Amino acid sequence: MKKFLLSEQEMPTQWYNILPDLPKPLQPPLHPATHEPIGAEDLRPLLPDAIIAQEFSPERWIDIPDEVRDAYRMWRPSPLYRADRLEKALDTPAKIYFKYEAVSPAGSHKPNTAVPQAFYSAREGVRRLTTETGAGQWGSALSFAGGLFGVDVTVYMVRASYDQKPHRRSLMRTWGGEVFASPSTRTAAGRAILAESPDSPGSLGMAISEAVEDALAHDDTKYALGSALNHVVLHQTVIGLEAKRQLEMAGDYPDVVVGCVGGGSNYAGLTYPFLADALTGVRTGTRFVAAEPAACPTLTRGKLTYDYPDTAGLGPLLHMRTLGHGFIPPPIHAGGLRFHGDAPTLCLLHDEGYVEARAYRQSEVFTEAVRFARTEGFVMAPESSHALRGAVEEALAAKEAGEARTILFGFSGHGNFDMGAFDAFLAGRLEDHELPQEQIDAALAALPRVGAPTA
Amino acid sequence: MKKFLLSEQEMPTQWYNILPDLPKPLQPPLHPATHEPIGAEDLRPLLPDAIIAQEFSPERWIDIPDEVRDAYRMWRPSPLYRADRLEKALDTPAKIYFKYEAVSPAGSHKPNTAVPQAFYSAREGVRRLTTETGAGQWGSALSFAGGLFGVDVTVYMVRASYDQKPHRRSLMRTWGGEVFASPSTRTAAGRAILAESPDSPGSLGMAISEAVEDALAHDDTKYALGSALNHVVLHQTVIGLEAKRQLEMAGDYPDVVVGCVGGGSNYAGLTYPFLADALTGVRTGTRFVAAEPAACPTLTRGKLTYDYPDTAGLGPLLHMRTLGHGFIPPPIHAGGLRFHGDAPTLCLLHDEGYVEARAYRQSEVFTEAVRFARTEGFVMAPESSHALRGAVEEALAAKEAGEARTILFGFSGHGNFDMGAFDAFLAGRLEDHELPQEQIDAALAALPRVGAPTA
Repeated sequence: MKKFLLSEQEMPTQWYNILPDLPKPLQPPLHPATHEPIGAEDLRPLLPDAIIAQEFSPERWIDIPDEVRDAYRMWRPSPLYRADRLEKALDTPAKIYFKYEAVSPAGSHKPNTAVPQAFYSAREGVRRLTTETGAGQWGSALSFAGGLFGVDVTVYMVRASYDQKPHRRSLMRTWGGEVFASPSTRTAAGRAILAESPDSPGSLGMAISEAVEDALAHDDTKYALGSALNHVVLHQTVIGLEAKRQLEMAGDYPDVVVGCVGGGSNYAGLTYPFLADALTGVRTGTRFVAAEPAACPTLTRGKLTYDYPDTAGLGPLLHMRTLGHGFIPPPIHAGGLRFHGDAPTLCLLHDEGYVEARAYRQSEVFTEAVRFARTEGFVMAPESSHALRGAVEEALAAKEAGEARTILFGFSGHGNFDMGAFDAFLAGRLEDHELPQEQIDAALAALPRVGAPTA
Repeated sequence: MKKFLLSEQEMPTQWYNILPDLPKPLQPPLHPATHEPIGAEDLRPLLPDAIIAQEFSPERWIDIPDEVRDAYRMWRPSPLYRADRLEKALDTPAKIYFKYEAVSPAGSHKPNTAVPQAFYSAREGVRRLTTETGAGQWGSALSFAGGLFGVDVTVYMVRASYDQKPHRRSLMRTWGGEVFASPSTRTAAGRAILAESPDSPGSLGMAISEAVEDALAHDDTKYALGSALNHVVLHQTVIGLEAKRQLEMAGDYPDVVVGCVGGGSNYAGLTYPFLADALTGVRTGTRFVAAEPAACPTLTRGKLTYDYPDTAGLGPLLHMRTLGHGFIPPPIHAGGLRFHGDAPTLCLLHDEGYVEARAYRQSEVFTEAVRFARTEGFVMAPESSHALRGAVEEALAAKEAGEARTILFGFSGHGNFDMGAFDAFLAGRLEDHELPQEQIDAALAALPRVGAPTA
C-alpha cells in the first residue's frame, strides 16, 4: 500500500467554487410559497449571512478562515492511498487511488462543511443549529463541530435509523448534540405526519421539514444542511484540491474519478477540482462517474425539475434530478445516500454530459466492501462502497480492454457504525430490492407545479 | 489543535528491546507442568521461530522486516497531537500531548504487533493462528493482519463481550476471522468450564486456554498473544519511538508519560523508548504513570509472583503482578484492560520504582472521555480514557502547583465500538464497583506453588 501525504502547509487555503465555471447558468432556487427566485433576504431567517453569501458567490476562490483551517488540522490534509493490494487481487493493469476521509473525528467527509457552518454561525451570534440526519453521519459531524465553537445542536434523526443505529445516536450525544427521532411531536410538520401515520419510519425529507420549522420558530436558531446546496459543495472541495496535489506527487492524473452520491456534496468535493480542468479546457478526456444506490436512484431514474428539499415544502425549491420530495427508500436499504434529490450543480453537470451516473445494488456494493477490507484493511461505509464498486468496475473494464487506466475514487467514511449491515450481508440476510417504476411515478406525481422562473 | 507528523521515511526501521536495559534480570518464564525455565524448544509448538527468538533476544535493536513496514505504512507514522483545547478547558499551565493510535484499520495500537506476528507466521508456513480476545480490539487486529498475509485466524471471544459487542464480532468476520464465544465446546478447557458453569460469562484467562489448546492440537496452527510477552511489547515500541521524534519536532520532552495498562503492551510501547533514557542515564527525572481500572487493579492490588496466563494453566508461568488466573472482573466493568496479570518487564520496572501505578473508577474515566470529545473532537475507547484520566490529574496538579509540566499520554484506540457504554454513562446507568479485597484474596489463594527456578 502506498500513501501520499501533504504537510499542513499544503492544506488548501481557499475553497473552489464551481459556479463561475459551469457550462450554463444554474436555475435559481425558488421561494417555496411564491415560486419566485429567492435572494439573500429570504434565506436570512434560516442561514448565517456568511453562508448565504457563499451560496450565491460568483468568485472562483473563497478564503478558508484561519479558525476553520485550525479545526481542519485535526484530521486534514487527509491521506491519498494507492490500493495496490486491491489492484493485485483484481489482476488489473489499472491504478486505483482513493482519497481517505475517514480520519476525521466523525469518521466521514461531513466535518469539512460542519466546521465552517458552525464557525460562521458562532461568529454571527447564533446560539443553536438545527439539522436532519439519515444514517447519522451528518448529525454526528454537526454535533462535533457545534461542540468546537460553542453552538448547541439539535438533530432530527430519521426514526428508522434512530431505532436501528443507537450507537450513532450515542455519538451525537457524546459530543453534546440533542437528538430526536423524526417525525417527532416537537414540530407541526412532525405532528401532521404522525397524525396520518403514527408508525412512520421517517425520511430525510420529513426530518428536514422539522429542522427547518424549528429554526424558523426561534430567533437565536439557524439551520444547517449537510449536502446539496452550493455552500456545502464548496466546503467539500478541500477533498479534491488535496487529492489533485497528492496525485501530482504520484506523478499521475486520473482518467476516471468515481464518487458516491447521496445529496452530492462528497461527490462534488472530490470531483469539482478535477471537473474545473475539464470545464476550463485545461485538461480534457477525464471521465466522471457518479455511483448511487439502486434503492434511491436520483440521477439515473429521477426527473430534472424543481422540487422541495423536504416533505412539508418549507425549504426553497431546487432545480434538480428528483424522485419526489415524498420518496422514501425501501426499508431494506442499509446505507445512507437516501436524499430524494441531488445538488443542483451536479444535476446540471450530469445533464450537460460531464458526469455519468450508475446505480448499484447493495449486494454488489457490500461484496466489494468485504473484498476491500480483506485486501486493503480499511472497513468502508456502505455509502463509500458504492464508489468502490464503480472503481472496481472501471478496473475490470481496463483489464478486459488490456489497457492502463488511472482511477481515483472517494473513500468518504468508515463503516464502524455499519457493522450490523455487514453482519446481515455476511449471513446472507441482506437482500436487494428492485425499485418498481410505479413507486417512483407516484412520488413524482406529487411534484410541485412550477412555471418558468420570472427572473 | 496542533499536530506533529512524521514522513514515511521517518518511520522506525527497528524496534526497541528493553531486555538488555532492565535494572535487573527478568525472572524467566517457567514450564506450566515442570516449573522449570522454558527454552525455545518448549515454545515451538505454540509460536513461530522468529517470534520465539525475539522473546528472548538480548539485542537492544531489532530490524523491522520490509513487509511489516509496508503494512505499517497503511496508518503509520501515526500523529502526535498537542491537546491545546483541553489545556484551555482545564485552565492549566501544563502542556498535554497525546499519541494517536486510532488511525489503524482496526482502530487501536493492536495491529502494531498483529502485523509482525501474522507476517512471521506466514513466512514459516503457519496456516492458521488462534487467539483470545476480550473487548475485541485484539481479535479484530489479528483478523485484519491475518487477512493481509493469507493466514486464517480463529478467535475465542469472552462470551460476555461476544454477546454485548456484536459489532466487534462482525468486524472480525468482515476481515475473514472466525469467532467463537468462549468458553466454547470446541476445546477440553472450554467444555470443562461449561460443565461446571453452563452460563459462564467467560474471561480472558479462559479464552487463552482455549486458544492455546486449539493451537497445540493442530500441527499447522500456532498461537498469537495480544499483550504481556516480550515480543509483543517489542513490536509496540514503534509508538514511543515515533512519539519521541515528534516531541523533538515540538521542541519538548515529557516530564511525565501516562498510559493505560491491560496486559501492558500499549503502555510499554509508548513508555519504553522514554524509559530507555531513564535506565541508561541519558535523561532522568521523567515520571511514568500506569493507569489501570479499579475493576482489574493488577499493579496496584495484585501480587508479584509466578502465575499462569490462562485459567486452565496451559501457558508458561510468568513472573508478574497478578490477581490470580481465575480472576474475573465485575461484569459492570465496561472497557477492556481485563487481563489478570501484566507484562513481566512492566511489573519489574514497577517494583523497581520506575513506574507508578494508579487505579481509576469508570465514572471518572468516562467523565474525561466526554470532556475530551467535546474539546478535542476525538471519541476515545474506555481503555485509553484511563490514560487520559491520569493525564488530566497531572495537568490539574500542575495548575494547583502553579508550575509548567509536559505531559504525554497514549490515545491507544477509538471508542466507535464502545458507544453502548457511553450511552449508559450519559444516561447515568454506568455504576462504579468497589472490588472487595476478599474477591482478590480468593483468586490469589489459587495461585500455583512455584519454588525458586532452578536455572
